[in-house]
Amino acid sequence: MRVQCDRLGPVPKLVDHHERRTLLADALLRVAATRGLMDVSLRHVAAEAGVTAGMVQHYFRTKDEMMVFALDVVAARVQARLDDDPEADAPRARVRALLVQLLPLDDDRALEGRVAVAFHAYAAARPAVAARLREDTAGMRAAIAEQVRRAGAPGALDPERAATGLLSLVEGLAIHVLGGHVDPDHALATLDGHLDLAFTPV
Amino acid sequence: MRVQCDRLGPVPKLVDHHERRTLLADALLRVAATRGLMDVSLRHVAAEAGVTAGMVQHYFRTKDEMMVFALDVVAARVQARLDDDPEADAPRARVRALLVQLLPLDDDRALEGRVAVAFHAYAAARPAVAARLREDTAGMRAAIAEQVRRAGAPGALDPERAATGLLSLVEGLAIHVLGGHVDPDHALATLDGHLDLAFTPV
Repeated sequence: MRVQCDRLGPVPKLVDHHERRTLLADALLRVAATRGLMDVSLRHVAAEAGVTAGMVQHYFRTKDEMMVFALDVVAARVQARLDDDPEADAPRARVRALLVQLLPLDDDRALEGRVAVAFHAYAAARPAVAARLREDTAGMRAAIAEQVRRAGAPGALDPERAATGLLSLVEGLAIHVLGGHVDPDHALATLDGHLDLAFTPV
Repeated sequence: MRVQCDRLGPVPKLVDHHERRTLLADALLRVAATRGLMDVSLRHVAAEAGVTAGMVQHYFRTKDEMMVFALDVVAARVQARLDDDPEADAPRARVRALLVQLLPLDDDRALEGRVAVAFHAYAAARPAVAARLREDTAGMRAAIAEQVRRAGAPGALDPERAATGLLSLVEGLAIHVLGGHVDPDHALATLDGHLDLAFTPV
């Protein structure tokens, strides 16, 4: 039986959805890195990944879907790094671990930051596309506010404003680092100063 | 003599550079409002302004130049509103007056905010284009740090980090308001909380 099976050739491999998704995600980020996400087309991604346009269209058919796919990819990469972070235990350390993942402090995060700002610009004129981003943002803001609350003693800002402030701060800092207006060390020092304010009892 | 001059017709009106620039600026912002700045072409602007493509090209010949023109227009509008602001005398009030002009709290500022975030996204992949933005940012940061210093007693953050923080905060908040993640009142309350931290002696 085994021999017969072998003669029929290998059982067709099931499509590995995750593998293909990763292949396309990497290709999309590579093209975005050189062209800027706004100028990337479905065809560029197919060419970069070495697959057919039809295969790409299985994952995203329109520019809107491609932008959401790119955002998902970035979110997944941030989450994976967070899961690997051993130091995130106390409230302040947990919030810091999240926020430094959003700062463009190395090439990977710079690329992700460019994708994020491109998505923000794209979504700013298209309320429908912004929905996916709203979920992510609301989730992160709630998580930060929860940690500020957990830290106990009231800080200089109430937890909601502290959370909105820290997340906005990091997104603004990311833009400034990407544009070369602020160097990464100064951005990190500015973040740490604000974390102190949010987590130090007054 | 006067009669003779009249018979020669009116003296050809000198091209009003400022008027034309304003006409094109308004057209550019109107098209950007509906399409998103990234998808605007020189031809769209010419059609919207009711002028020839050649006239538009006198002001910007390439997409890069159009983006810089758009940023200049936004900066000029912000400056004009600041010049009209009567309340900006004390250091904290001056900084607040500047920063609220960068928050999308009405339709005009929302449109300018969309232009600004589109410019950030565009510039993030094109270092050469970012130069103009860097000047503006450095100027605003220095102005804020100067006011924090002038306020006298040391606040919770040193002036440089306070300035970087406030400007980044407002740019992040602007993105969150534009994306519908944060409502304008919460954004303003978050800004005021951070102004208190920067300007209140510890």
